[in-house]
Amino acid sequence: MIKAGIIGATGYTGAELVRMLSAHPDVELTVITSRQYEGKKISDVYPALSGRSDLVCEAFDPKTFCEQVDIAFTALPHKIPMGIVPDLLERGVRVVDLSADFRFRNVADYEAWYQPHTAPELSENAVYGLCELYHDEIQHARVVGNPGCYPTTILLALVPLLKAGIIRAEGIVSDSKSGVSGAGRGLSLGSHFCEANESFKPYKVDGHRHRPEIEEVLSAAHGDGVEVTFIPHLLPATRGMLSTIYCTLAEGKTEEDARQVLESTYADRPFVRLREKGMMPDILHVQHTNFCDIGLSSDSRNGRLVVASAIDNLLKGASGQAIQNMNIMAGLDEKAGLL
Amino acid sequence: MIKAGIIGATGYTGAELVRMLSAHPDVELTVITSRQYEGKKISDVYPALSGRSDLVCEAFDPKTFCEQVDIAFTALPHKIPMGIVPDLLERGVRVVDLSADFRFRNVADYEAWYQPHTAPELSENAVYGLCELYHDEIQHARVVGNPGCYPTTILLALVPLLKAGIIRAEGIVSDSKSGVSGAGRGLSLGSHFCEANESFKPYKVDGHRHRPEIEEVLSAAHGDGVEVTFIPHLLPATRGMLSTIYCTLAEGKTEEDARQVLESTYADRPFVRLREKGMMPDILHVQHTNFCDIGLSSDSRNGRLVVASAIDNLLKGASGQAIQNMNIMAGLDEKAGLL
Amino acid sequence: MIKAGIIGATGYTGAELVRMLSAHPDVELTVITSRQYEGKKISDVYPALSGRSDLVCEAFDPKTFCEQVDIAFTALPHKIPMGIVPDLLERGVRVVDLSADFRFRNVADYEAWYQPHTAPELSENAVYGLCELYHDEIQHARVVGNPGCYPTTILLALVPLLKAGIIRAEGIVSDSKSGVSGAGRGLSLGSHFCEANESFKPYKVDGHRHRPEIEEVLSAAHGDGVEVTFIPHLLPATRGMLSTIYCTLAEGKTEEDARQVLESTYADRPFVRLREKGMMPDILHVQHTNFCDIGLSSDSRNGRLVVASAIDNLLKGASGQAIQNMNIMAGLDEKAGLL
Amino acid sequence: MIKAGIIGATGYTGAELVRMLSAHPDVELTVITSRQYEGKKISDVYPALSGRSDLVCEAFDPKTFCEQVDIAFTALPHKIPMGIVPDLLERGVRVVDLSADFRFRNVADYEAWYQPHTAPELSENAVYGLCELYHDEIQHARVVGNPGCYPTTILLALVPLLKAGIIRAEGIVSDSKSGVSGAGRGLSLGSHFCEANESFKPYKVDGHRHRPEIEEVLSAAHGDGVEVTFIPHLLPATRGMLSTIYCTLAEGKTEEDARQVLESTYADRPFVRLREKGMMPDILHVQHTNFCDIGLSSDSRNGRLVVASAIDNLLKGASGQAIQNMNIMAGLDEKAGLL
Repeated sequence: MIKAGIIGATGYTGAELVRMLSAHPDVELTVITSRQYEGKKISDVYPALSGRSDLVCEAFDPKTFCEQVDIAFTALPHKIPMGIVPDLLERGVRVVDLSADFRFRNVADYEAWYQPHTAPELSENAVYGLCELYHDEIQHARVVGNPGCYPTTILLALVPLLKAGIIRAEGIVSDSKSGVSGAGRGLSLGSHFCEANESFKPYKVDGHRHRPEIEEVLSAAHGDGVEVTFIPHLLPATRGMLSTIYCTLAEGKTEEDARQVLESTYADRPFVRLREKGMMPDILHVQHTNFCDIGLSSDSRNGRLVVASAIDNLLKGASGQAIQNMNIMAGLDEKAGLL
Repeated sequence: MIKAGIIGATGYTGAELVRMLSAHPDVELTVITSRQYEGKKISDVYPALSGRSDLVCEAFDPKTFCEQVDIAFTALPHKIPMGIVPDLLERGVRVVDLSADFRFRNVADYEAWYQPHTAPELSENAVYGLCELYHDEIQHARVVGNPGCYPTTILLALVPLLKAGIIRAEGIVSDSKSGVSGAGRGLSLGSHFCEANESFKPYKVDGHRHRPEIEEVLSAAHGDGVEVTFIPHLLPATRGMLSTIYCTLAEGKTEEDARQVLESTYADRPFVRLREKGMMPDILHVQHTNFCDIGLSSDSRNGRLVVASAIDNLLKGASGQAIQNMNIMAGLDEKAGLL
Repeated sequence: MIKAGIIGATGYTGAELVRMLSAHPDVELTVITSRQYEGKKISDVYPALSGRSDLVCEAFDPKTFCEQVDIAFTALPHKIPMGIVPDLLERGVRVVDLSADFRFRNVADYEAWYQPHTAPELSENAVYGLCELYHDEIQHARVVGNPGCYPTTILLALVPLLKAGIIRAEGIVSDSKSGVSGAGRGLSLGSHFCEANESFKPYKVDGHRHRPEIEEVLSAAHGDGVEVTFIPHLLPATRGMLSTIYCTLAEGKTEEDARQVLESTYADRPFVRLREKGMMPDILHVQHTNFCDIGLSSDSRNGRLVVASAIDNLLKGASGQAIQNMNIMAGLDEKAGLL
Repeated sequence: MIKAGIIGATGYTGAELVRMLSAHPDVELTVITSRQYEGKKISDVYPALSGRSDLVCEAFDPKTFCEQVDIAFTALPHKIPMGIVPDLLERGVRVVDLSADFRFRNVADYEAWYQPHTAPELSENAVYGLCELYHDEIQHARVVGNPGCYPTTILLALVPLLKAGIIRAEGIVSDSKSGVSGAGRGLSLGSHFCEANESFKPYKVDGHRHRPEIEEVLSAAHGDGVEVTFIPHLLPATRGMLSTIYCTLAEGKTEEDARQVLESTYADRPFVRLREKGMMPDILHVQHTNFCDIGLSSDSRNGRLVVASAIDNLLKGASGQAIQNMNIMAGLDEKAGLL
């Protein structure tokens, strides 16, 4: 049995980790922490968890925490993990971090969009936890930067196509839509039921922080600077995320070529489901799962390729992928606890 | 043209008043106030109102305000109106108050559920603004206490039946359900989209403040103390409210008797729609309207009468009824600006 | 490994069975049937199931079917199972039937609300599959009548209270609310998105077929005829069901007595969660689970006890409970495949 | 008073026409027809309309119909209006047709995407009823082809920009999203509540029939063939439509230039609201209104201009614009009955 702990267990992603790790056949969830709810049972914070977990939220103490775990999930706001993770590693605990703190190899990108980084070398040497594309590196990683939700949808769709030269690197547009849970459990007018229900709108059109993350990975895949027009929107749904990505086929390439590349890339990956020709993904089909569904379409008049990619933002876009990372790091079946 | 002003224009009920009064054929909306948004255009607070109103939120100054209006709507949290209304009246302005401050003839009830009342005589002499049942008193009222949303559904259904002796006063149960807008625009975990969407639950089961309001009016209708078991629930919908009311037919009375009493009571009232036998109201049919729909059913095995009553909580349950009250007070067509 | 098959796999309850049985640690799902989708992969009918099940829908042939299974789930419209189940039993296959065909010990009740019964003795000897209350009988049952969704909410709440004499048998009212999936995948105006979204209404107020099922079991618990006023409502949510039940405490009994009876009844039952004093269930907390959450409240003025009971109508109200029944019948851990 | 009639009053757009025309200050709605509901009161088909209209659905008889109306709204499925409208015109009745039958000047486009046209000359001479852009032609039109909902969002945004040379005609992408009411009241699995709720997906990616309509009008504005990549999506909301349009600024042009062109184009048009810099439209702000909200953003790195445009698909996208067309045709205030 792997012993796991969660630092920051009371946000939406933390609660999903508690739920899944409590039922995971190869894991014992030994400790959870929360500043806001210290001393409270997690099942009082999330009544849905009663009958599943009896754990009580503790204050975070590195020594006590690390004595109880082999692997830690840090489900905290950006900036906090980079202050904690170095200590965890020194104490021999491996880490899956769900914030942005360890997603960037190029720390300057992080610093341009977030804040100064206090553990830059660690970030440069962390592994980007997009499981299907960095499986081998993840196996041996000490710290994994769990990808952002939007980047997960876009990168699983585009990285293989760019690498194989199926699409051009110029002119990529991603029109992306997320359920409201992506904004977390904190209170704001934008996530008030009466403002989000029956609503739909673009937001952060002048620059969302997931854009540099997307561009860094796409640029690495392409071998050169890739710019993406990325417009996120808020859906009137709790969970689910779908990116409709518009790009241009490279000279002589076809939708069928794109399909074959994705098929061969993901042939043995249990959580990417390539949809048949003419069929597009629906967030309904991935909710409460760790799957990423991808569909293709093209316009023969102008060589435009449309790739749609859907996930559950709290699972494949956060906690599910975090557990998938843990499974890979610990040498378990990649699917354990996730189906 | 009647000149109207709104004190507290930036909550959900205030914004509905702005929308409707701006289009009202016989009213000029001259002034709106807001502490939180002083100096801001109402269309910046509610972008839906742009193109409808150019008004800017002002600070409330009694003198300036009263010089511009014949009638004032106070759309403020409980407790504030009772400090303001006496001054408005002295300055010759008639008032429709949307809070609970002037809903109680028996001030002790108010004080037991809210707080000490600073204008008790005014409350005792205010008119309860349930338009269909207190039409004549409203015509001449200086201050109208606009009814609560839950009381509106229950009282329109039961007062005529109790008065006519169709139902027994004992054992009345109202299982009531409200859309989330009933909780207002303030932030709370309960109105977070992810907590309210796909959710449904009873709340305040140990005593909601609308219960004494309901019981006071029912007791007056019956001539004696009436107790109601009242359980409110939160619906995963923005607007709409439906009460399913369980009571017992008086000896020898039938569902058909109940229907006839309601039919004759509301024959000339434009906003109560009695549904045909076998048909029940649906909040979908009253949303964005000032109607109250009422349906009847009964169980011949045990004399149980079931009355369902539906409104839009922000309109007939608040701002729509407030305008209906103003229409009656000002001698206008009761329906003006409301269809 | 238990070998299981599903007859009628393509409705919502059938699809939930496929999903859960495919991941069940002790079960092999060997065969699924469908008239409408014969020859189609289940993952084409429900794209959400791709990557989980490769099964193809077959026509139902009793001989072939029974050679492949130890236990059968019949997820078919009422009336069809009673024509099929006798043959399955003769071929040595045990059955969990999700229709109403085997829910009634008193066949006359069935015939009054459904149609003539063609296997009345089988129905009289079938076991009512309310797992928490009929656990021992289920262990040895050859055919289990899986309870209706509404009855599950009401009976888990009331049977222990009636048996223990905590509440009176007279005057029980259940105001029940269901998500739209309770109406199945068939097309009707009532389940059209634009008619159900932002809607809420009572339906079948003159008699829903779950009422005799509820009354039969309550009457057996009480030892005498119990009549219930049962008004179902349609919620604007996909899944979830909540009954708010109004009853009267027996002379000298209290809410605390009720709590103690439920606590001791369900102390060792993993899927009933009794909520603490002051806390009420929410369908959000039981969605996608097999739990039933129960909360209590009372009005000391008149001895009214309010019991609220919530489930996921497709799981504890149908397919989850069906698997729980199978687990009990097969001597497995009652929770296997359900957490 | 203008006398108006509706042919096909019982779909969602027909019902909206009934609602608005019944309250229109300058119109008398004299007759409504329906094949499906002949002889039924419209308020039985749509209980929301009771208390608003007492009209009974009649069979359509051209002679009787035309004797009662000055102007006719045809709210029928494509193909039927072209068989009816010529007769209406001969009888001196002007027509606003809500189908596609009179939207195309180039009948070959219509025939490629719909079916052979039986009144091609009439179509060629009809006026495209996009009120803000064809106001003058509409005034004198005998038959107006009321625009499709998607085209309305896209054309109001792009036509002025193309005409003024602000954007390039190449490479335009519209990622468009519609509420479910856009699919009408007919039954289909796609509009089943449980399939549409909490769902989001692209559909008709290989060619939606609104594309040729969009391209015809854009090409006319540009003076040359314009191709658009148009991907519609289905939102989990009843009403509302938003297009996020990606295009490229012409050499030397800026977002500010685009803003100025839209501002001057719509300065006197009451129903287009250009949002301030940094603010994007939300379908919540246009629901139940005839407004079209437009917002702008751009990416200085690559000259990409993003234009978002939102309407209520049943109002500005159908029945509201139809009434706006009638107002213009009849010389009434363009806003009459629409605010």
